[in-house]
This record gives sequence, structure tokens and C-alpha cells, in this order.
Amino acid sequence: MYKPEILTNVRVVLSHTTHPGNIGAAARAMKTMGLESLYLVNPSHFPDPQADTMSCGAEDVLRKAAVCGSIDEALQGTVFVAAMTARLRDISHEVLTPREAMPLLAQHAARDRVALLFGTEMAGLTNEEMGKSHVLVRIPANPQYSSLNLAAAVQVACYELSVAMQYAGLSLRQVEVEPARHEEVERLFVHLEQVLRQIGFFNSKHPNKLMQKLRRLYARARLEQEEINILRGILSATTWYNAQLKKDESEKEEERRGKGEG
Amino acid sequence: MYKPEILTNVRVVLSHTTHPGNIGAAARAMKTMGLESLYLVNPSHFPDPQADTMSCGAEDVLRKAAVCGSIDEALQGTVFVAAMTARLRDISHEVLTPREAMPLLAQHAARDRVALLFGTEMAGLTNEEMGKSHVLVRIPANPQYSSLNLAAAVQVACYELSVAMQYAGLSLRQVEVEPARHEEVERLFVHLEQVLRQIGFFNSKHPNKLMQKLRRLYARARLEQEEINILRGILSATTWYNAQLKKDESEKEEERRGKGEG
Repeated sequence: MYKPEILTNVRVVLSHTTHPGNIGAAARAMKTMGLESLYLVNPSHFPDPQADTMSCGAEDVLRKAAVCGSIDEALQGTVFVAAMTARLRDISHEVLTPREAMPLLAQHAARDRVALLFGTEMAGLTNEEMGKSHVLVRIPANPQYSSLNLAAAVQVACYELSVAMQYAGLSLRQVEVEPARHEEVERLFVHLEQVLRQIGFFNSKHPNKLMQKLRRLYARARLEQEEINILRGILSATTWYNAQLKKDESEKEEERRGKGEG
Repeated sequence: MYKPEILTNVRVVLSHTTHPGNIGAAARAMKTMGLESLYLVNPSHFPDPQADTMSCGAEDVLRKAAVCGSIDEALQGTVFVAAMTARLRDISHEVLTPREAMPLLAQHAARDRVALLFGTEMAGLTNEEMGKSHVLVRIPANPQYSSLNLAAAVQVACYELSVAMQYAGLSLRQVEVEPARHEEVERLFVHLEQVLRQIGFFNSKHPNKLMQKLRRLYARARLEQEEINILRGILSATTWYNAQLKKDESEKEEERRGKGEG
């Protein structure tokens, strides 16, 4: 029933958690569903006795937890990120229910490392965090009172993942994409933004909003490493071509000067 | 999406709960899933400030809660009882998963009052309580660490019930991507190939194969019209920037020639 070798590929990332009790309760929720890999991005208080108390037998998960200074550090090495959100925002990444998303996460986890990302208790995910995710996952809730406790959301997500894994392998189709790692995707976006700036694409527009839209597009596509190589090749060619143009022109000038002087 | 008239038929019964904080957290979990009818059988401490704190906006559920002296009082008027258990006992009730049990509970709730019964934190259900239930429900959990927090179990059960109710009437939500029309996508590829040729990207590579790979990538993303506009904007900026470079250089040259001649 359990496939621990798949579950070890799933990390739960809690970003900027305020209450240490929630971290402990989340660790307990994870462990009941067989998950043990916890990453904390800048928690307000950790380690903390309240976290230990609330973990209630899952202290080992807390002791092994990785405390990270940035979201990129926490996502390093992952190929798929599902981010939990309570809100439906204007930014429209693909938003799935846990029942839709967890089989996807399980499929990716069957082959490589993946992350389940949770924002802070009050404000949820930042735009930056959403931008680094492949799907947003929203637990369908009472429209008049939709705010699940953080650990409760962790429990529901891990429960759905665990159920999805039990059904996995039998009926689900294989993922046809070999997704690239988080850090490679980030490098692409750095490169892209740099070239877009260079060619003056941002002049009269809003760089952040545009970059978010491009992130959304490529998140949906779930880029493969080879595709990243192609896209970065195009970016390099753009730059190289420009450099070449400049060089050619200045060589011609040199030539002309040479002739003029000769 | 929500069917409050069915949900009002579902009561959550917590028997002999020890920690008032768990009662509050359970009330919150219930309310997020649209349930508001809470019955408490001989709670150790209730009402209690800790319950209020943990309910976090679901105080109305606590205020309306019925405190009962016996399990029979709490189950009065119900036609179907699903009892949550963490343990597999020798008692030979039918044991279902939440996914199996909640559609049943929803069916009964569509016609009459039903109960979701939870035992005490440490010992779970008594034999008497199990005897008064129609099905036992067990959340599949890590065999080495199967003890969910009471409120976490309430959250999972109410979540499954809520999902079961949604599937009862409605089909899946629409995909949120508004895909662009075929001809717009084709125009993008013509434009892309043209610019890639212009910047010399195809020099040492195989244009067709590369274009196919790019098609595959963007097909997966299911491009929207706005995204096509952005991508074509980038292509236009590339061309414009290159033209600008050439123009600048030839103007400089003109200038130099002018000087030379003057």
C-alpha cells in the first residue's frame, strides 16, 4: 500500500511560517501520511518547544527539517512544484483541486523530486512563490469561511497524495515530459529577462507582470531540459547576433579607416 | 457548489474529548467545509477559552454546539452513523475508507439526519459507540505512525464529505485556459522561424527538427492569445533592435564619411 521510495521524493515546503505550533502540527500531519521531508523557508521561530509539543511523536521530522534562507534554496533539485493556495487571484496559473493535482504530483514523484509548497498563515503565497510553481492547488472550501488551519491543509494535501499513490501505477498514464530541475528553469528566466531588457522589450511595459505571464506559460508547459537548452540557445543567438552586428560594423569601420590612412 | 440544505443534516459528534483546543480546531475544520452542527458528548472542558482560540473565526459553531450526557442523546434523530476509527479491531463492522464512506453518508444526508462520530483522542471509539454506528471509517495512514490529530481527522472526513457532495451533482469545472485559435498559433510559428533564421539560430542546426520541438513545447502549454501577443512582441523587439543596431552603425559611418569628405 505504501511506497516509501516514492514518498521520499516529496518534500513539504513551509514558507515563512509564523506559529511554531503549526510547524509541529504539520510535521505530525505529514508523518501520518508517510511523508518525512520538511523544508522551512525563514520560519519565525524554529526550533521551538511549541513545535515539538504539537508534533506529538513526529519530532524526528522536525529534527531532520531543512531550514532555508530562500524559496529557491528550498526548491533546489525539484522538478515539479504544487503550491497550495486558499485564494483565487487574478494571476491565473492553472488552479486544480487536490484530487486533480495529487495524481500529477505522484507521477512526477515516481521519478524525481517534487515539492508541496505552503505559504504563510495569514497572507498565503507570494507572487514570486506562485511564479516558481507548476500548478496551484486549492482545497474546495466554504465560500464564507475558507481559511483552513495550515496543518489542516497539510493534512488534506498529504492525505490526497497518499491516496493518489495507492491508486498510482495501476491506471494512471505516464508523464510524457522529462521536466527540468528548478534551478535550470530559474536560470532560463534570468537569461530571458536579461535579453528582453537588452533588446528593449521592457521599455514601455511592466517587466514584472510580463515576466509573470511568461512564467505562467512555461509553468504550464513543464519545460524539459532540452527545451531549456533550445530556448537559451535562441537567447544566446539573439545576443550573439547583436554582438556580431556591432563587431562587423566596427570591423568595416576599421577597414575604412585603414584605407583612409593608407 | 455547496448544498447547505444537505450539510445541515450532517452533525459531527465528538465523544469525551479531552483537550478543549481540539474542539475549537475541529469546529474550524468543520466550518471550512460548510458543516456547522457540532455535538459534544461529555467533553472534559467546555466551554473553554482554548476552544475559542483554536476555533479562529468559527466561534459560532462552538456557541451553537450541543453538549450531551450520552452517545444516544447525541445520535438522537439520526438515520445513519459513520464512526471514524484509527484502529483495526477484531470487532467485525464494515471498515471503509473515507472515499468509500462519504458518498454513502452524503446519500443518506440528502434525505435525513446523519452523524460523523469521533472517539476520544487517546482511546478512540468504545465498543458501545462502534455498536451504534453503521459503518466504521478508517483514514489510510502510515502503519508506523497512524495517529492523526483529532481536528486533522475531522478535517479529512469533512473534506471527503464535501467533495463527495460536489461530485454528487456537478461535473468537473472547466479548464481555465482560453486557448488561442489555430491560425494565430500558426502565425506565431511563421514569425518565430523567420526571426530565428534572421538571428542565425539555424546555422548549424536542423530547422525542422528544432521547430518541431518548439511546437511540442507550446502545444503542451496550450497557448492563450495574450501569450501569443507577448511572444510575438518579443520577436518584433528582436528584429527592431537589430535594425536599430544596423541603422546606428550606418549612420555613424555616414557621419564619418561626411567628416572624411569635409
